[in-house]
Amino acid sequence: MNPNLLQSSNPVSKNVQPKTLERASVWSRYRKVRALTESLAKPLSDEDQCVQAMADASPTKWHLGHTSWFFETVVLRQFWPELPVYDEQFLYLFNSYYESLGPRQPRPQRGLITRPSVAQVNAYRSYVDEHIHEFVHRCDASLWPQALQAIELGLNHEQQHQELILTDVKYLLHQNPFATEYCPEGEPFVFSPQPTSAVKPEWLHFAGGLHAIGHDIAHEVNHFCYDNETPRHSVYLYPFELANRLVTCGEYLAFIEDGGYQNPSHWLSEGWSAVQAGNWLAPLYWKQNTEGHWRVFTLHGEQPLDLNQPVAHVSYFEAAAFASWANARLPREAELEVAFGEEEGGKATGLQQAFGACWQWTCSSYDAYPGFKPFEGAVAEYNGKFMVGQLVLKGSSCVTPEGHSRASYRNFFPPSARWQFSGIRLARDL
Amino acid sequence: MNPNLLQSSNPVSKNVQPKTLERASVWSRYRKVRALTESLAKPLSDEDQCVQAMADASPTKWHLGHTSWFFETVVLRQFWPELPVYDEQFLYLFNSYYESLGPRQPRPQRGLITRPSVAQVNAYRSYVDEHIHEFVHRCDASLWPQALQAIELGLNHEQQHQELILTDVKYLLHQNPFATEYCPEGEPFVFSPQPTSAVKPEWLHFAGGLHAIGHDIAHEVNHFCYDNETPRHSVYLYPFELANRLVTCGEYLAFIEDGGYQNPSHWLSEGWSAVQAGNWLAPLYWKQNTEGHWRVFTLHGEQPLDLNQPVAHVSYFEAAAFASWANARLPREAELEVAFGEEEGGKATGLQQAFGACWQWTCSSYDAYPGFKPFEGAVAEYNGKFMVGQLVLKGSSCVTPEGHSRASYRNFFPPSARWQFSGIRLARDL
Amino acid sequence: MNPNLLQSSNPVSKNVQPKTLERASVWSRYRKVRALTESLAKPLSDEDQCVQAMADASPTKWHLGHTSWFFETVVLRQFWPELPVYDEQFLYLFNSYYESLGPRQPRPQRGLITRPSVAQVNAYRSYVDEHIHEFVHRCDASLWPQALQAIELGLNHEQQHQELILTDVKYLLHQNPFATEYCPEGEPFVFSPQPTSAVKPEWLHFAGGLHAIGHDIAHEVNHFCYDNETPRHSVYLYPFELANRLVTCGEYLAFIEDGGYQNPSHWLSEGWSAVQAGNWLAPLYWKQNTEGHWRVFTLHGEQPLDLNQPVAHVSYFEAAAFASWANARLPREAELEVAFGEEEGGKATGLQQAFGACWQWTCSSYDAYPGFKPFEGAVAEYNGKFMVGQLVLKGSSCVTPEGHSRASYRNFFPPSARWQFSGIRLARDL
Amino acid sequence: MNPNLLQSSNPVSKNVQPKTLERASVWSRYRKVRALTESLAKPLSDEDQCVQAMADASPTKWHLGHTSWFFETVVLRQFWPELPVYDEQFLYLFNSYYESLGPRQPRPQRGLITRPSVAQVNAYRSYVDEHIHEFVHRCDASLWPQALQAIELGLNHEQQHQELILTDVKYLLHQNPFATEYCPEGEPFVFSPQPTSAVKPEWLHFAGGLHAIGHDIAHEVNHFCYDNETPRHSVYLYPFELANRLVTCGEYLAFIEDGGYQNPSHWLSEGWSAVQAGNWLAPLYWKQNTEGHWRVFTLHGEQPLDLNQPVAHVSYFEAAAFASWANARLPREAELEVAFGEEEGGKATGLQQAFGACWQWTCSSYDAYPGFKPFEGAVAEYNGKFMVGQLVLKGSSCVTPEGHSRASYRNFFPPSARWQFSGIRLARDL
Repeated sequence: MNPNLLQSSNPVSKNVQPKTLERASVWSRYRKVRALTESLAKPLSDEDQCVQAMADASPTKWHLGHTSWFFETVVLRQFWPELPVYDEQFLYLFNSYYESLGPRQPRPQRGLITRPSVAQVNAYRSYVDEHIHEFVHRCDASLWPQALQAIELGLNHEQQHQELILTDVKYLLHQNPFATEYCPEGEPFVFSPQPTSAVKPEWLHFAGGLHAIGHDIAHEVNHFCYDNETPRHSVYLYPFELANRLVTCGEYLAFIEDGGYQNPSHWLSEGWSAVQAGNWLAPLYWKQNTEGHWRVFTLHGEQPLDLNQPVAHVSYFEAAAFASWANARLPREAELEVAFGEEEGGKATGLQQAFGACWQWTCSSYDAYPGFKPFEGAVAEYNGKFMVGQLVLKGSSCVTPEGHSRASYRNFFPPSARWQFSGIRLARDL
Repeated sequence: MNPNLLQSSNPVSKNVQPKTLERASVWSRYRKVRALTESLAKPLSDEDQCVQAMADASPTKWHLGHTSWFFETVVLRQFWPELPVYDEQFLYLFNSYYESLGPRQPRPQRGLITRPSVAQVNAYRSYVDEHIHEFVHRCDASLWPQALQAIELGLNHEQQHQELILTDVKYLLHQNPFATEYCPEGEPFVFSPQPTSAVKPEWLHFAGGLHAIGHDIAHEVNHFCYDNETPRHSVYLYPFELANRLVTCGEYLAFIEDGGYQNPSHWLSEGWSAVQAGNWLAPLYWKQNTEGHWRVFTLHGEQPLDLNQPVAHVSYFEAAAFASWANARLPREAELEVAFGEEEGGKATGLQQAFGACWQWTCSSYDAYPGFKPFEGAVAEYNGKFMVGQLVLKGSSCVTPEGHSRASYRNFFPPSARWQFSGIRLARDL
Repeated sequence: MNPNLLQSSNPVSKNVQPKTLERASVWSRYRKVRALTESLAKPLSDEDQCVQAMADASPTKWHLGHTSWFFETVVLRQFWPELPVYDEQFLYLFNSYYESLGPRQPRPQRGLITRPSVAQVNAYRSYVDEHIHEFVHRCDASLWPQALQAIELGLNHEQQHQELILTDVKYLLHQNPFATEYCPEGEPFVFSPQPTSAVKPEWLHFAGGLHAIGHDIAHEVNHFCYDNETPRHSVYLYPFELANRLVTCGEYLAFIEDGGYQNPSHWLSEGWSAVQAGNWLAPLYWKQNTEGHWRVFTLHGEQPLDLNQPVAHVSYFEAAAFASWANARLPREAELEVAFGEEEGGKATGLQQAFGACWQWTCSSYDAYPGFKPFEGAVAEYNGKFMVGQLVLKGSSCVTPEGHSRASYRNFFPPSARWQFSGIRLARDL
Repeated sequence: MNPNLLQSSNPVSKNVQPKTLERASVWSRYRKVRALTESLAKPLSDEDQCVQAMADASPTKWHLGHTSWFFETVVLRQFWPELPVYDEQFLYLFNSYYESLGPRQPRPQRGLITRPSVAQVNAYRSYVDEHIHEFVHRCDASLWPQALQAIELGLNHEQQHQELILTDVKYLLHQNPFATEYCPEGEPFVFSPQPTSAVKPEWLHFAGGLHAIGHDIAHEVNHFCYDNETPRHSVYLYPFELANRLVTCGEYLAFIEDGGYQNPSHWLSEGWSAVQAGNWLAPLYWKQNTEGHWRVFTLHGEQPLDLNQPVAHVSYFEAAAFASWANARLPREAELEVAFGEEEGGKATGLQQAFGACWQWTCSSYDAYPGFKPFEGAVAEYNGKFMVGQLVLKGSSCVTPEGHSRASYRNFFPPSARWQFSGIRLARDL
């Protein structure tokens, strides 16, 4: 491990621009974000929090530990070097993928760690919280602006893991042959995209020409962004149309009933292989009972399929096949960013469900923006090293934490991934 | 599921001959066996009890549930048909491998069952205990002899799982990169074979000729046996010699230091492939630290290698390679049974560590005895369907429950298995 | 199989614009292309032509059959419907991946087809040639323009397979532990990129702004293009610099000697996994002999590493890691196309080795161009269905047939592919 | 490689007892055996001889080379040390599994060796034949008895490979989706077991007690045996009955039609897994056409199922399941050896098809006989190192060369193997 990679002379990123330098408000925001994470673990037993259901999904306990490790590594050890390491073993156990920070527990084996216990990991959280609290108030003024950037990154990082906790827990509970619920309906959380029955489908027109995409430093709502959203730059677009809302379960069911999963002509070659290898017949979490009724597994347990809800948990392959079947295509990343940006900027485009329903697959590969520079230090590995073999998703989902959505956000997953709350917005050329 | 497969007109087995028909003493034995199982789970957190470390090893919680399911299925549902099923889901979750009893949770996915919780499984145990208690006292006298056989089978079955809990937990804790202990040393349990420093190695001579092996109905100590130990029958043996004690860690270390793991000439072809594929350099749980000292992972945590202890956790391949290197061979099943039988019968042969140290690999494949008939009913699947591709191990180990050892016992594992407490006794021809 | 998918009312593609309608010259070009394919098989025994060395590589015999099947399917059966099928079995054996044309021999099992023999496949080639000859001269004038497009597609398709024959044979012969040569040096073919010792490395500057890429219908040299090169469209580029020549083996060796394959910081995450899983230490076909000298396997057998030759047979992962190590980046597709287009258009940019040395990895994913429409009919599956998970390579290689190179050409392979003649040109931002 | 392992002071085996020391007759026998091998390759093209259809099956060319390598290694290099090695590369390519003779081409990659060509391998055969010829006549009289043992071993080894050529070729041709024939019917070879329509099934009784099995040195017909057939030793058997003939295809079809492949109760646990993983519905090479008629692939091409022929190409799992379904069991090795030995000895037991129809699965694991000693020298690896995880088959098949059958012969394969001519003889206890 080379702690010099985190030299305090290297700001985490020039892009990280917190909204306020005021220490009390920073601490208050920190507490709020951290508390939300813990509230997500509340409905879960220690057993629920420990088990790993597949290599791509992590145990809740690991998420709880890793997000604390991130604060210890990126804030405390960086700006408070005399503070001893909490536990050397935790550096190994809770490092996710940072090669520069040394060896780590292999991802597919995170579920074998029955010790430290959930209680011990929560004690680690408390320790980190206490020391962040102390640090926020004692940090030297000269270091504060930089430290604040690191804290802001840590908070956004934690919010990403809040969404992952819910997606990973959903997947885990679904592996149980008698899948039950994460929590009863009626709880404060809403874990399914809202139905959109009232919304008539329409095509919205967007003009071509040069557009700027990437994080806008003057962004009013959210000053923060990840390195992969920069630099803001021009792209040339042709005029295009976007659907005013997401594809519904009802529309997707029509695709299924039309033999969509049996007809290779709509599918990418690799997608058709995935259909056959995985014996896919419907989105993840759908199943047809013996009477032929479709039912869907949700965080509130199994429920009847709501035809008016946006379809979720489809892979890129399924999204692209559906679009082909519907004589349309998936949007480009820049197209969605332009449209969402207008929406975000207060312009009434008629576009709905940009945020808060489902992540929306684009047909754009997750490539670096022209002039892209990764964060400096260890967090250079945050985004850049995954820029191959993945597709961009835009918007956000019903399990994305509040304040974590923006038009320039670049979510990304491999084309076969289905366990995220990923849905479909159609596009077409003029 | 076809409950008729468990017709009460079919005795579980004519071989199951409990020592007493006296009900109070049956209940007392039942309580003692069940309580031991629970005491084994005591040192473990809910997380420790839930996780599955490999396909061949089961979570402790699953063992707790499965042994209760066995009593519910083989005793309660069989002899008390009007009693409702405790939970239909448990029939699916805790059926191990009985095809005739319907579908079941796939073995490699037993660790995904975070629900029912450990507490719920313990409630199931209590329910079964209470109803067995009631049943023992109310069972019709005409059914009692048969019912008692089923109970006796359930108790022996539970004892097998007691040993498995310890072997599986040991394997699980070892997966943790910072492996700790199951329980501190000094506890009532002794989980390592006792050192044998004082015992000088010697060859003991045994006569050839016709010998009877298989369970002897007149067995004084243990009236019970499994179907696979029957019928008692004659085998013709040539005169042979057995080592008076097991191979020690020090002797095995000499094999390692002589390049045993680098020289194919001592290995079976399939064994040599296993060495290379698994990068085997020593028995499971051994590791050499940076100073070159050998250390061993035990249920009491990592400890220095004790050269005088019997070597344990070797595969058949390693046992056979060691024997070849030592200019000896592994014993045949019948040879060990004859020798252990003499010992059991009180004859002083000089043979030590027959029982209670390590299971002893034989070079005999696990084949059916001439005239073998499986148990009747669903438990016909107990042993017979595994009679291919496995080797017999004789004796018992330091984690075998008291009263569960006998000369006719036939333990069996595939030749690559290393997570059992399996060791080596040498043999040779005259 | 649905032959209607190839309705003669559907032109193969509006993009296919042969240079001449003159029948004699079409036939002469056809003969020349087909004869080259056969000459490539000349140095190979029947055994060499039959075996398949990996799932991604096909036997030469299969290439010989498949290219003939393509002419039979796309030209003869389409425009001469009364002609009977040559052999129904060949429709199954030599269909590559066209789902709409029915089931086919699975790709990884093409090497199991010892029958039909090489001789029988060559007889099939002759049959197709004879009937194409007859067809070219008897085809109704009204159909001729369309038929000509299909022939042109078939010829370009065959040229792609000429390159594949050489890459696949190279891979096959290399599997032989005593790898020999495809043919002796000095033969007409040149199968290694020419050394570039005399060329000093320099950065060439290119202006930003709006550029048009995609096939230019007014292209002087090559009227033909594939569907994936269309439509021509505008992209906005920032000013950039390209290396005037490809990275040499000597330069790549410096990367190796600097620990490039041992240092994760230069690698994409998935690339680093590939390095470790495949135990990569150098490009494919390189090996270090016991004296430490590097040697390279070529179609002329094993040879000493020529430090002045362009490095070839690197994956995208290696190309990207090298670029990172060299403080540069890989070019975008549009950047190379602009630069090669200028070169092609006769403008002296100083850029060398655009064509004929090595395919050049770009950092651009193989996505559809805005407004992309696949070919019509069965050949709709030619390109579009592979547009996920692959990277674009531009230029052409030393084994690309003459007349098959152009700036708009979009070659594509997954990022782990190393058996193509793929090399590296560096780029950087200003 | 350590040629000392083949020291001429070590006789190959004391068990190898050729019938004659007369040199002319040895040479004549050698020529006859070698010529038969070559005649088996005659109907095959170079392509047929080169391709490997699965890891367990080898190309014919490899068999041709390996059997010659065996004579060069075990006879020429051993007893004529001044003779130079024919080709160092061949020592690597044609070593099958002899660790003591150095590294070798991995078994699953034998099919990648397109060079040396079939012609070059045949040249190697000629070279070996010429030098064996010279050696037979010039060998020093003092060495001759030992040399003769090595030659005898080489000839028996070659005969084993003759059978493997036919089984492996059958499997290869069957992989072709349009499987054709190895050679037309009516040729000298008979490649299917003869129908047994006239034979009424009967149980033949055999007495229990002590029996001697293993090769009898006084054997009249065949003085040769492999090490694994020794030493002759006593076994104690209980009275048993054997079916007078093999199970027919008609009888096996009744098992299929009774749902045999759908009912786990007849199957070993591992067998049932094999049925499901391999989607087994019938013996290898059987298929039901669209009209429901069963057809069988043979070396003479596909043919209608002959209900009166012995069923062949069943795994041990299928044989055991059939026996269970038929309320019988498979014979023990010793039972068949006793019965076949009586037959061989001229005693009329009524038992048919001991030899020349199908190998007969026994329920006996392939374990070492008491007192077993492997051959000395490199050929120690011939048999002993495979003594785990395999079942013994007795008798011989319709593709076993003449003179290669005897009661003591121990053929062995893993329980899942189906590509051998393996059939079923039933047994039962009294």
